[in-house]
This record gives sequence, C-alpha cells and structure tokens, in this order.
Amino acid sequence: MKDIQNQLDHRRINIKKVGVKTISYPVTVLDKEKKRQNTIASVNMYVNLPHRFKGTHMSRFVEILNQFHGEIDLKSFQKILVRMKERLEAEASHLEMSFLYFLSKEKMSESLKVCHYRCSFIGSLEDEQDLQLKVEIPVILPLIQTEFKGLPRSRGHWGKAEVLLRLKSFVWIEDLILLIEGAIETEQSSLATTGHDALSVESLTRGIAESLARLSGVSWFSLRVENLGNEYSTFATLECSV
Amino acid sequence: MKDIQNQLDHRRINIKKVGVKTISYPVTVLDKEKKRQNTIASVNMYVNLPHRFKGTHMSRFVEILNQFHGEIDLKSFQKILVRMKERLEAEASHLEMSFLYFLSKEKMSESLKVCHYRCSFIGSLEDEQDLQLKVEIPVILPLIQTEFKGLPRSRGHWGKAEVLLRLKSFVWIEDLILLIEGAIETEQSSLATTGHDALSVESLTRGIAESLARLSGVSWFSLRVENLGNEYSTFATLECSV
Amino acid sequence: MKDIQNQLDHRRINIKKVGVKTISYPVTVLDKEKKRQNTIASVNMYVNLPHRFKGTHMSRFVEILNQFHGEIDLKSFQKILVRMKERLEAEASHLEMSFLYFLSKEKMSESLKVCHYRCSFIGSLEDEQDLQLKVEIPVILPLIQTEFKGLPRSRGHWGKAEVLLRLKSFVWIEDLILLIEGAIETEQSSLATTGHDALSVESLTRGIAESLARLSGVSWFSLRVENLGNEYSTFATLECSV
Amino acid sequence: MKDIQNQLDHRRINIKKVGVKTISYPVTVLDKEKKRQNTIASVNMYVNLPHRFKGTHMSRFVEILNQFHGEIDLKSFQKILVRMKERLEAEASHLEMSFLYFLSKEKMSESLKVCHYRCSFIGSLEDEQDLQLKVEIPVILPLIQTEFKGLPRSRGHWGKAEVLLRLKSFVWIEDLILLIEGAIETEQSSLATTGHDALSVESLTRGIAESLARLSGVSWFSLRVENLGNEYSTFATLECSV
Repeated sequence: MKDIQNQLDHRRINIKKVGVKTISYPVTVLDKEKKRQNTIASVNMYVNLPHRFKGTHMSRFVEILNQFHGEIDLKSFQKILVRMKERLEAEASHLEMSFLYFLSKEKMSESLKVCHYRCSFIGSLEDEQDLQLKVEIPVILPLIQTEFKGLPRSRGHWGKAEVLLRLKSFVWIEDLILLIEGAIETEQSSLATTGHDALSVESLTRGIAESLARLSGVSWFSLRVENLGNEYSTFATLECSV
Repeated sequence: MKDIQNQLDHRRINIKKVGVKTISYPVTVLDKEKKRQNTIASVNMYVNLPHRFKGTHMSRFVEILNQFHGEIDLKSFQKILVRMKERLEAEASHLEMSFLYFLSKEKMSESLKVCHYRCSFIGSLEDEQDLQLKVEIPVILPLIQTEFKGLPRSRGHWGKAEVLLRLKSFVWIEDLILLIEGAIETEQSSLATTGHDALSVESLTRGIAESLARLSGVSWFSLRVENLGNEYSTFATLECSV
Repeated sequence: MKDIQNQLDHRRINIKKVGVKTISYPVTVLDKEKKRQNTIASVNMYVNLPHRFKGTHMSRFVEILNQFHGEIDLKSFQKILVRMKERLEAEASHLEMSFLYFLSKEKMSESLKVCHYRCSFIGSLEDEQDLQLKVEIPVILPLIQTEFKGLPRSRGHWGKAEVLLRLKSFVWIEDLILLIEGAIETEQSSLATTGHDALSVESLTRGIAESLARLSGVSWFSLRVENLGNEYSTFATLECSV
Repeated sequence: MKDIQNQLDHRRINIKKVGVKTISYPVTVLDKEKKRQNTIASVNMYVNLPHRFKGTHMSRFVEILNQFHGEIDLKSFQKILVRMKERLEAEASHLEMSFLYFLSKEKMSESLKVCHYRCSFIGSLEDEQDLQLKVEIPVILPLIQTEFKGLPRSRGHWGKAEVLLRLKSFVWIEDLILLIEGAIETEQSSLATTGHDALSVESLTRGIAESLARLSGVSWFSLRVENLGNEYSTFATLECSV
C-alpha cells in the first residue's frame, strides 16, 4: 500500500477540485424592466487546490454564500469568487448559478403574462476572471399551416437552442432572449416564404449564430440546437470567437 | 404518548401498505413477432396488511421475484401475486412492472428499425384479481406542411397519449400500440382534409377512445392526452366501461 | 364510425377532465417568520365538465391565474377555484400548486441559513371545498456513530417522508415541518437509546403519525415513508381520519 | 445580412459537430460470467465536419447503427466509428453508449440476485482511436452501528463514485466494479477501526484512486466522489495518468 501511496504522490494525483453543489437558494437577479426579480437558484461552488484539501473547510463555501444574502448581480458574483479563492487558499475558484428567469410578455390577453427561461451564470477566477452566461430557449413551431386567421393553431415542441456567451461587459438577459427568439422567427419565416424546405438543426444553428455575432459585450459564444424527435433527437453545435 | 398510542390503535391507523419499489430487473416479455423480447423492468411489489407488519419480511418480496428469474408473462404475473399474498399473509397483493417495449418497424431504410414505448403491467389480488396494461404513445406531428413529396419534413413533439386498459383476456402490446397510432393518424388526416381546425387534446381524446371501444378483451379503459407546450401543457382525460 | 359514436355518447364517455398543467409561475406564499416569501410554483388547473368542452376555453385558465398576480394565500386559492368553476361552467374545479418553501435555520454558523422543502397546496371545489397541504421531508441520518464530540459526522440520505393533510383551518407550513422533523428525531433517538434495532419504514411511519394526530386544524392525513436503497427502496403508507 | 454572412464564413464559424442523440436501442454486451447479457442502451452518434453538412445525411447515423443489430463489443464499437467517419466524410467520429449493466451476486438468500450499475462506452476516432469506459458506483453505508450480529441494519445512501478510464486494452466491467466496491469497503473499514473520523469525499477519492492505479489496461483515469446531502452535496475530483 505504501509504495502505491508514494507512487500516487509522485504522480501528483492529489485531489484536483473540491466543493459543494446543488445548493437551493433564493436569489434576486437584475431585471431590465422591473430592476430586480426574485427567483430560486441552484448553486455550485468549488475550487482547484494546490495541495491536499482538509475536509473541515467544506462549510466555508456555504458561509461565504450566506454573507451575500442571495443578492446576486455581477459585482457580488465577482466578490464571491475572490472570497472563495482567498478563504480556501485555492489556485482557482468556480461559481455556477442556474435559475429560472421570468420575462413579462403582455402581447395577448389569453397568454401567460410571464414566460420562463433556464439561465446560468458560470464564473471562475484563476489569474484572470472568466464570466459566462448561458440561456436555454425552447423552439415551439406551428404544427399545421392554416389559412384562417384568428383560429387557434396547434403548436408543437420542435426543440431547443442552448447559447453560452463569454462576457466582456454587461448584457441584459432580456436582450439576449429576444435576440435569439427573433433569429428563430426569422429562420422560420424564411422557410414559410420559400416553402420548399423544413427547418433543420444546421440552418437554425447558423441563423442564430449570425444574430449572436452582432451582439456587443461578447468575446466568444457557443451554440447547440436540438430537434427533439420521438425515437431520437438530432443536434448541431458551433462555436465562434467574436 | 401511551394515550395517543391507544387512540391511534383505537382509530386503527395501522400501516396500510408496505413493500419494495423501483427494483431494476432484467425481464423477458411476450412479443407477437419474435415470441419473446429482452428488456429491463422497474418493479414495485407491495401488500395490504391485516395487522402490524414485521419489518424483517421485506426480503420476502425480493425472494419471490428471484424465484421467477425474470420470465414475466401473464401466468407468472398471476403466480407472483398469489405467492406474495400467501407468504406475506396479506389481505391484498400488488405488483407493478414498467418497461420499455421495442417494436420493429421495417417501413423505411432511413428510420430506426426499432421504436420504443413505455409500458406497464399493473396487477392486484384481493378476493379477485385485477390486471391492467398501460401504454404511453408519443404524438409526433409534421410541423410545416410542404407540397413537395420526398422532401424531408420537419416534425415536432406535439404531446402524448397515455392509455390504461383493464384486461378481461390477453391483448398483444403490439396490437394496442398500432391501434392507438392508427387513431392518431386518422384524427390528424381528418384535420388536414377539413383544413379549418388544429388538433386539440379533446378531439384526439375522443378519437382514440372510439378506437379503444372496439378492442376486445378489455372491460374498462382510461385515457389521457397531453399537448406539450412551452409555458404549460394542456390535457384532457376520459374513462369508459366497455 | 357513427354507430360507435352513438355508443360512445350512450355510454357517456365524454371528456371527464380538461385543463392546463405545469405552468411555471412566480408566487408569494405566507411565511410565519417573514410574513411573505417569494418562490416559484408549478401550477395545474383543471375542471370536470358536465358536457363536451370547447377547446377555445383553455386560455381562460391562464387568464384567471393572471388576475391574481401570483399572490397566493388561502383566500386567493379559494377565489381562484370559485372563478374557475364559474367561468368554465364546470361541475368541479381543481387547483394544484407545488413550490419550494424555504425555512430559515440559524442554528449553526457553518450550515446553510435556508433549508428548502417541496410543498403543495391541492384544492378542489364541487359542492363543497376541499383543501390539502402536502410536504416532503428528507430523512438524513448519521452514518457512523462516533464518540468524539465536535468532530464532523458523516451523514447519509436514509429516505423521505411525504405527508398529506386535509385542512379544516389554517396551518403554518413551518409548524408542520418542525413537527415532522421532531418526530423523526425522536424515533431516531429512541433507537440510539435502546441500541438493538435499526430504523424501519414501519416504525418511522407510526412515529410521525402519532405526532400528526395531535395537530389541530386537520381532519384527515396520509403518510408515506420511504427508505432509499441501492437496488430498491422500501416503503410503508398509512392514512387516518382525525 | 450578407456582410455578416461573409464575416461568419471568414471567421470559420461553420457547424462544428452534428449528429443524433438518445437513441434507445436493445443491445448485448460482454459478460464475464454469462458471456453475453441483454440490456438497453441510450446511444449518441456524432461527427466533426470539415465543411458545411447537408441535413439529409442524418439518417446515415441510424442506418449504420442498424447494420450491427445491437451486438456491441469492442470490435463492433471500433467498426461503427470507422464506418461513421467514412460514410459521413468526417474529420472525427464519436460514439457514446450508456446502459445498465447487471451483475449477479449470490451472497445472501434475502438479497436481490442482480445488482445494476450505470455504465458507458465513450469512443472517438480522429487520427487515432480513443476508447473510454465509465462506471457509476453507489456508496451505501450502514447508518447506525449496532453490536448485535445478525440483526437487520439500516443503510443509507451516502453518495456515489463516478470513474472514467481510458482503455489501452480490454477490461471486464465486473472486475472494475468489484475493484471499486472493494476500495470503498476498505476505506469504510479503516474508519471503523480507527474510530475517530467520518468518511470524507477526499479520503474516499484517494482510496479509490490507489486501487485504480493498480489496474492494468488503463492509460489514464478520472474520478469523482460525491456525498449526497440534504441541502447540498459535497464532491471531490481527481485525475491521473497511469
């Protein structure tokens, strides 16, 4: 056993990352229209360690989170990363926060006044800080074309688009959601006009990428479009430095 | 504490049901075309007890299951129910088995040769035996009507139909699946012909019910059709004694 | 087809229930300590219909929900049920609302200051109104007994208790959670004292039932205790009119 | 629009990966004791493309899978990767197959005769081939120490270990599972002997790594141990070139 132990130490196979995950926590996030909105986050906090980690320090992650009382904006996000790195004497700190973001849409009386989107902030701090924003947009399409205006149209769940942005500066979640939904609508309309092709994961991926490339405040993005099927799904991915 | 205890005993609030659940188990089920097919079941086994149950008997459920080596047809299903009732000295025994059923579909070269459906056998034995079969059928519809034959059509996940049958006699799972899928196709075609309405959960519920009412070997059925949406789903349910 | 149709009508197999489900909606619920707390609900709304339902009315469910702006207490819950029954001309209306409830626990500096519990309000209105409250409590136990005070103890996920109460009058969610957690602790301590038995789903079910029987404002309850295992889980259920 | 399009092309943000995912498929895998076992796989197949992909080729993935009739061993796994790369004219091909593996354990009459483990084969072929095996092992520990032999002991779900191996040569899944379970038992016993510490994610991570380092046929491994808690989980990760 001892020899293996020495071998292991020689190979430097010490613990690489350690932390806590899936903390359910009520948070407030910035809202373009209402200034702040209340939601619930699932939080992961972990660090890269320079040497063997003592187990008793696990509670420090939660202590740090408690100090911010769930008020999460970009500034507090950065502060949490700094404090994790210091308090846990880590080489790098990581913070991930996934939450439902609610967006008011007052278009029609019959519809829900709030739509929800799964969003995440993903940050890390080593020598420099890296901050990413992830949004998941459902793609819902009309199922059967009807010529009769005003009649209810059946709609179906075609699939979804997952977008991950590396942020240089602040971006409103609302602006990002509306940009992507606009790109989906454009792609769908152009199909309806030309009339001779069906929506494909590849064409929608390119359509959304063209819109994202115009977004300021972003240094890089990746994108995954998925068409949910019955027996299996199809997907396409793309990434791009802006 | 004692008084409450007496009260509780007086009110007869003894344990009502006790058992084991979510046992993953490899099983073979009857297959109309291939005679037998191998699949994996999630099994629940529980009993109603006439008086307080001793905890040490939990292992008996698994012992009984082991004796059948995963060969599950209607006969062995009934035998397991009888043995559970006897060995656990129960008022009633319950057995539920959920599994993926694979159906060969050799229609097109480009498609998967096997489709899968979530099915369940749900049985209980008190004075009489009750056996139910449950099938979940996805409803996949063309998203955008195109006039060009042979071109790829985009399809979307409209929703699903869940059917539960009380069996008087043996029914092939294949026959049930094809009957329901036929009813969905009929309902969808009639919409395409009349051209002035979208598929609704109510009309599809009635359409499937009309087909199920013709099925022999069934004494009762219930049905639930769900249209998956983005912000929420809509559904309709129905039940019928045949 | 016509004959079957007539048969179906004769058998009165019309649509039984129809509605919307899994609406994600930000709500505020009553909080004993903080008066109100913000959380996110998953809402189901459906009705029993006296005759065939027209599909165009589905939007009315959402309209009614929007009118209450997510302020959900017992009074608004009852008002929504009344309005659903009236507007949809229904025999009975049903409203289910599931949400994470956060409870502050300031015991230890190292622990999370908020714990979360999955709760549901389940109401229906036919001739009379029925209101139920459901709470799910995780059962976390020390894994290995250690004699050294102050040392970190490893804990494991033993299982969970699901409690459903029929309410005669108002009950604080906090009071219910603390009552059940107290009952779990009592049951566990009594095992540690006697030292000759392990925690069983049956004994814990009876222990929690004894506590619930003392709760005022409740006319009936049911209870399900589950011990999560590796290959399978064991469970016991019980119900009691108070 | 055109300019952006040119920019996009200039930046080479063409589709990066494209394919199909979550195909449910009945497969047979090698079994050390019984030679072959039947199970159900969830299959992902995708490729890296040198230039823009035509959507009509999606069906080729499924065609290739159908040609192997679900007989999946290391040889057929490699053949599928080669055929995908050729038929789709890809720079690289990827195949992932996740399935439940059942292991017979005849130790005790009262226990289940089969235990199940979530396993995956993960392969890719660019210039060279890379093959990885992933296994997920639940960590179930006794909850309360009892001195009375033969008495039923309550057990709890402490957490899980996820192991990913890069294979140089063939490794039996059984051997890997038993090696990891042995390492968990050793770590747990050493705690019981010394009596002054609780099982930590860090110590268990190191304990399992020491065992894996002795396994032949492996060129690299990574490891993640997770302790499931109530409010949150803790975890540690490690990776090592052998």
